[in-house]
Amino acid sequence: MPSRRTTAGDIERYAGLFARRTHGMTSSAMRDLMAVTNRPEVISLAGGLPDTSTFPPELFSSLMSKVGATSSAQALQYGPTEGLPEARDCIVQVMAAEGMHVEADDLLVTTGGQQVIDLVARTLIDPGDVVIAEAPTYPGAVPVFASFQADVVQIELDADGLRVDLMESTLDRLQTEGRRPKFIYTVPSFQNPAGVTLSLERRQALVRIAKERQLIVLEDNPYGLLRYEGDAQPTLFALDGGEYVTYLGTFSKILSPGLRLGWCAAPRPVLERLNAANAAADLCSAPLAQYFVGAYFREHDWRSYVRTLSEVYRRRRDTMLDALAEHLPREASWTHPQGGLFIWATLPDYIDTTDLLARALRENVAFVPGRAAFLDGRGGSSMRLNFSGVGEDEIREGVARIGKVVREQVALYSTLTGAVPADPTARHARTAEPDAPGATVHEFRARRAGDR
Amino acid sequence: MPSRRTTAGDIERYAGLFARRTHGMTSSAMRDLMAVTNRPEVISLAGGLPDTSTFPPELFSSLMSKVGATSSAQALQYGPTEGLPEARDCIVQVMAAEGMHVEADDLLVTTGGQQVIDLVARTLIDPGDVVIAEAPTYPGAVPVFASFQADVVQIELDADGLRVDLMESTLDRLQTEGRRPKFIYTVPSFQNPAGVTLSLERRQALVRIAKERQLIVLEDNPYGLLRYEGDAQPTLFALDGGEYVTYLGTFSKILSPGLRLGWCAAPRPVLERLNAANAAADLCSAPLAQYFVGAYFREHDWRSYVRTLSEVYRRRRDTMLDALAEHLPREASWTHPQGGLFIWATLPDYIDTTDLLARALRENVAFVPGRAAFLDGRGGSSMRLNFSGVGEDEIREGVARIGKVVREQVALYSTLTGAVPADPTARHARTAEPDAPGATVHEFRARRAGDR
Repeated sequence: MPSRRTTAGDIERYAGLFARRTHGMTSSAMRDLMAVTNRPEVISLAGGLPDTSTFPPELFSSLMSKVGATSSAQALQYGPTEGLPEARDCIVQVMAAEGMHVEADDLLVTTGGQQVIDLVARTLIDPGDVVIAEAPTYPGAVPVFASFQADVVQIELDADGLRVDLMESTLDRLQTEGRRPKFIYTVPSFQNPAGVTLSLERRQALVRIAKERQLIVLEDNPYGLLRYEGDAQPTLFALDGGEYVTYLGTFSKILSPGLRLGWCAAPRPVLERLNAANAAADLCSAPLAQYFVGAYFREHDWRSYVRTLSEVYRRRRDTMLDALAEHLPREASWTHPQGGLFIWATLPDYIDTTDLLARALRENVAFVPGRAAFLDGRGGSSMRLNFSGVGEDEIREGVARIGKVVREQVALYSTLTGAVPADPTARHARTAEPDAPGATVHEFRARRAGDR
Repeated sequence: MPSRRTTAGDIERYAGLFARRTHGMTSSAMRDLMAVTNRPEVISLAGGLPDTSTFPPELFSSLMSKVGATSSAQALQYGPTEGLPEARDCIVQVMAAEGMHVEADDLLVTTGGQQVIDLVARTLIDPGDVVIAEAPTYPGAVPVFASFQADVVQIELDADGLRVDLMESTLDRLQTEGRRPKFIYTVPSFQNPAGVTLSLERRQALVRIAKERQLIVLEDNPYGLLRYEGDAQPTLFALDGGEYVTYLGTFSKILSPGLRLGWCAAPRPVLERLNAANAAADLCSAPLAQYFVGAYFREHDWRSYVRTLSEVYRRRRDTMLDALAEHLPREASWTHPQGGLFIWATLPDYIDTTDLLARALRENVAFVPGRAAFLDGRGGSSMRLNFSGVGEDEIREGVARIGKVVREQVALYSTLTGAVPADPTARHARTAEPDAPGATVHEFRARRAGDR
């Protein structure tokens, strides 16, 4: 980030040059936050970082030595936009491990999973087109949807994931209003940020709706293999057979995000457009990283590393759940994820987590304020907590620090209002209903062309 | 690329879902071409590939071993969107080698130089906004401009680069028409595809115009350090002091494109928007590759490798110039690049190089047809020839094969029309004027919102 802050004069000089799509981009607060959380004294529960220190450095070195010895010139060269055969063959294996059967030609290798969201939005969204997302949704998708000027309709989650029962009435209403949704964006397993998992019945219902209404579903599944309890669920892609479901996968959470390698599997006509957009965006994804993945899958049992990660993260999840029970006041509630990286906690509605973050940072702890997961400013009393990126001691200490600033706010509120704490049975709720449970469908209408 | 071709039924099913911006995307012909040129028996003069076999494989392995030993966890982790300090420090050195003095905070690390073009277009272009580009322009920029629905106004080149003398009248005309150009896109040194270099006088004039009219110039300079004769020219960024010039650099041509690492230096208000767009596009560029670059710059004299490359490419350029003189008919002309990777050849106007390519591929040789460098279908009798990607013997053989199919077309034309060959003095022209020299400013107006 530039150290010299922009002056008003600078802004004025260039103001007229920026495209309308940039007006809705709201990522700078998150980026400023990330800059703060990089300070070594801060315990960050904000990021979605895997623990890459669990990957053996000597394995990294030996794999790269082999890539150098056998494929230096190719690893350093441009590659095909759709990805190298070596990498696509590995992806076929990863998808098979979750019950999906694809050929290499069904796949497009991308620069991380993030690029899939970007390419899908870019390929499908005209300003004002509707995207259906979860409430809350992945905070990193919010600036993508905003930058393509989408109208995002967010449908509530509960402990069983997206409220698919609300989908049909929402689609009917949109149709009445003459608004056609272009795609449904969902993270069905261990959702980011809520941690909840879509039930089998809802998965089947969602796929049926997509087929009946000829709607594309973008299934974002970075964590599906990181399950710590309960039975695996079939992916939407597996249930649908790849007809209406476009699948987003990534090596970021099962190997490394520093490679920047993700992929999508999609119906062929969609894949061809995504591939053309991919070429325009960055020509191809790094062959260097693709050769590393190829060598890793040849030389090593990739599933054993996923098992290692799952064991580490399961313990950290349990540690965080225990710490939340110990340190958050009874008015708070939080989700119990069966896998993935995140817990979603909701505080009494008089606490604003964006304000709370400023206090928390003074205590050297960070989280993602809930508003980052909505396009309409909602989520103000919730927060996303990550348990994969730091060790168990830091999780305990980080949650204790958050507990301290939360309890201060609760005490302040009680003093000011004379209020009594809420019903203790709300404590340790298995699933926090995202705030304001009465309102189940949230809308955000991006700026239209004329709104400059 | 998908092996199962899309059927009419498939296309119809999804047709209504695609965004308008995808309608102007024309990259699939180029991608199909690239697929063909990957056949081992084809001599491809089509790509813009550096010769990565010149990079010592044992250096690759030893650098990566060091990265593994010292920074495995960080190299495998997410990094900051703006890039790691290690990589930005290297970029500061590369820019200093061309007389540009920047701080790390003036820089944004990107996924190759291509991503800079994409981010700039995305940040500045609303549908119908004007981009000024060279005629011909970099073929890889064409689908970017098309995908953001830009109106591209292409201004002619000659032996001294962009005809800056035509710039003021073009800008005046656009102003009269109420059309404000958002930026000027140019490759001033060893232009892609024409190989020509902007003279000092024109550089000064272009920077003056940008300042007077408060216009952003996107200076794309992948090859500036690859000069084989003549004196270095200051970059536009150096002349302007970084006020209106946004600079695009890349490690692709001085180290490796397989890393997918480029960068931009820009005025701070522009840089901040580009950084936000970068976060939405792919979160960050690969830390793995950034650590590799950092180790390489620490352990190795990066400028000595650039000297090695320059020596190899200078010989290949000379070989190609000799081969063109030997094998192309006297009616053809071509440029004489002082550096970079490309020669632009123009054939008699009755030869269509897109048709010619099909014949050339039957002779197992490939080039880029000139139309790929225009947005309006012009350039039909020109071709881009790359001399960096294959050895001297293959260059000789490849040009001989092209010469064969060209001479067949000339002979056919002579037979059909009884025409006599053109003035022999046209042969070996130092600079080919791009075709139809009477028309100096070409326009392409992308589909407007209502043109579905």
